[in-house]
Amino acid sequence: MSDPPEDSHQLLPISAIGEAGLLQVVQRYCPEQVVGDDAAVLAVPQGQLVVTTDVLVEGVHFSNLTTPPHAVGWRAATANLSDLAAMGSRPHSLLVGLGLPPSTPVAWVEELYQGIQACCAPWGCQVVGGDLCRSPQRFVAITALGSVQPGRAIERKRAQPGDWLIVTGPHGDARAGLELLLHPEQGSIVPAAQQQLIRAHQYPQPRLDLLPLLAAIPDPMRLAGMDTSDGLADALVQVCQASGVAARIEAERIPISEALQQVFPAQALEWALYGGEDFQLLLSAEPSVAQYLLEKLPGAAWIGEVTGWDPQGTVRLDNGQILSRQQAFQHF
Amino acid sequence: MSDPPEDSHQLLPISAIGEAGLLQVVQRYCPEQVVGDDAAVLAVPQGQLVVTTDVLVEGVHFSNLTTPPHAVGWRAATANLSDLAAMGSRPHSLLVGLGLPPSTPVAWVEELYQGIQACCAPWGCQVVGGDLCRSPQRFVAITALGSVQPGRAIERKRAQPGDWLIVTGPHGDARAGLELLLHPEQGSIVPAAQQQLIRAHQYPQPRLDLLPLLAAIPDPMRLAGMDTSDGLADALVQVCQASGVAARIEAERIPISEALQQVFPAQALEWALYGGEDFQLLLSAEPSVAQYLLEKLPGAAWIGEVTGWDPQGTVRLDNGQILSRQQAFQHF
Repeated sequence: MSDPPEDSHQLLPISAIGEAGLLQVVQRYCPEQVVGDDAAVLAVPQGQLVVTTDVLVEGVHFSNLTTPPHAVGWRAATANLSDLAAMGSRPHSLLVGLGLPPSTPVAWVEELYQGIQACCAPWGCQVVGGDLCRSPQRFVAITALGSVQPGRAIERKRAQPGDWLIVTGPHGDARAGLELLLHPEQGSIVPAAQQQLIRAHQYPQPRLDLLPLLAAIPDPMRLAGMDTSDGLADALVQVCQASGVAARIEAERIPISEALQQVFPAQALEWALYGGEDFQLLLSAEPSVAQYLLEKLPGAAWIGEVTGWDPQGTVRLDNGQILSRQQAFQHF
Repeated sequence: MSDPPEDSHQLLPISAIGEAGLLQVVQRYCPEQVVGDDAAVLAVPQGQLVVTTDVLVEGVHFSNLTTPPHAVGWRAATANLSDLAAMGSRPHSLLVGLGLPPSTPVAWVEELYQGIQACCAPWGCQVVGGDLCRSPQRFVAITALGSVQPGRAIERKRAQPGDWLIVTGPHGDARAGLELLLHPEQGSIVPAAQQQLIRAHQYPQPRLDLLPLLAAIPDPMRLAGMDTSDGLADALVQVCQASGVAARIEAERIPISEALQQVFPAQALEWALYGGEDFQLLLSAEPSVAQYLLEKLPGAAWIGEVTGWDPQGTVRLDNGQILSRQQAFQHF
């Protein structure tokens, strides 16, 4: 157990190399100078600290059927980085808590870490610590740290009447990809489109490409928003309720990918509104700022506007339908 | 589900109040200004950032048999605060990820948070965020943030020949308390002592009282150590291996409480070495610094010394026995 694990150990269960062996495997994915103590010591990022935690549980958020371990790691990292993006915050470091049955192959853990690293590395973000423990059910609990300059965080409660509502990209693809993984016989057979939808489910991109654009927005930065991880309808209602405003959404302006239209035309709008896990951002901004973001962000689209103050936070589609959070993914 | 949860909701399962209702319950334990967005925005603590994650799983680290929810929260918080103490780091904030079966009573979650808060509050540490999700198995994944001045962190690798090895308090009590909870018929019947041991298991104290003493240690602070959460033997071997030194321990100097001696005289030394979860600190310091800490820290004791350089990190009891990590709690 004190030998460093070799690649031949990858097919073994983690119980065969023990906690110490597994620690050596995962520490390869961390900067050497921060691991090996009770806690990691980091340089403090400039500005304010932004912190978020997301937990993914096997059988609830992922399964071997739908998500290979590399994609589990990627999605767990994206869930956290997307929260940082939604705050306008630059990612700094990640901590990874894992619950693992002893029968888990070493390769499963290593591929999970590779997925986390592949998602984080382009943004200069590193895994700096974590915890490994035995659990009957696999789960991944990631905490992400980021930074933001004071007064430059994007908050949910800042939407105002007259704002445009924009999204950073298409919605519904992740839900469609999950459907194809669970029920491969569903939908029209368009192989390239099907692959694109599956990829949207397994490898969602955190929209951190928003960050460099924020510098051009003058002080005070009056930009509201959140990520759409629980669905676009949920995000719209949450932003409007937090801000005490009403909104009108033009349903046909919600961006839906060609792939989704081809494979699941009947379900496309429903999944765009309620599917979740697309990890796009919903933003509410005065028209000049929204216009600037629409020009600079590939895939972004205007979907509606904030029509007035409203303590109920009513969100209405142009056909009169009022959106609610009830249809969103219910955790309990 | 949109009504704020009342105390009468406490007996309900969390599925009856839903995620939104449960969020309202747990957000009562967070400062109002930091919750309600995708991530929490915090003032950056001065100095370097210190971060650590610990995961506790029901059936592995706790059960209803041994640990009421208030104590689960307390112990989860202590596991993290103890890691910060072992780094010489001042705690700042906590993030709490919870995996919960839908049948979990609302009261269980609320008592867990009360336990976390009770453990943190004396140290000026607050819960600033987290995540709630459905899971067949309950688990608690806590991340703690702290701060330390550059060059003032306590590291494992700094032990040197001539150092004294000291511990901050008695060992073995937590293991004995667990034994009494699992097998109430075990041990001698000494009710007050039994209660003390059970309390040591359910409500261990993070040794953050070390922190104010560190200011008196001159620069550069050459203090090595770690917490003894996986047992004193494990901590001794880890510090010696990380530092490349050998140590000699006088077994009869390892502090063992009168309660442990009374109830489990035959197992006392074994549990002191290998029991774990006492959340004391092992420190290695030059004799003058060790002397100062022994005078100032109630319950602290000299247990041995670093005898020389040794790449193997050999730790020998005065009876010749060599300590190993093999007998420590194996996670897998």
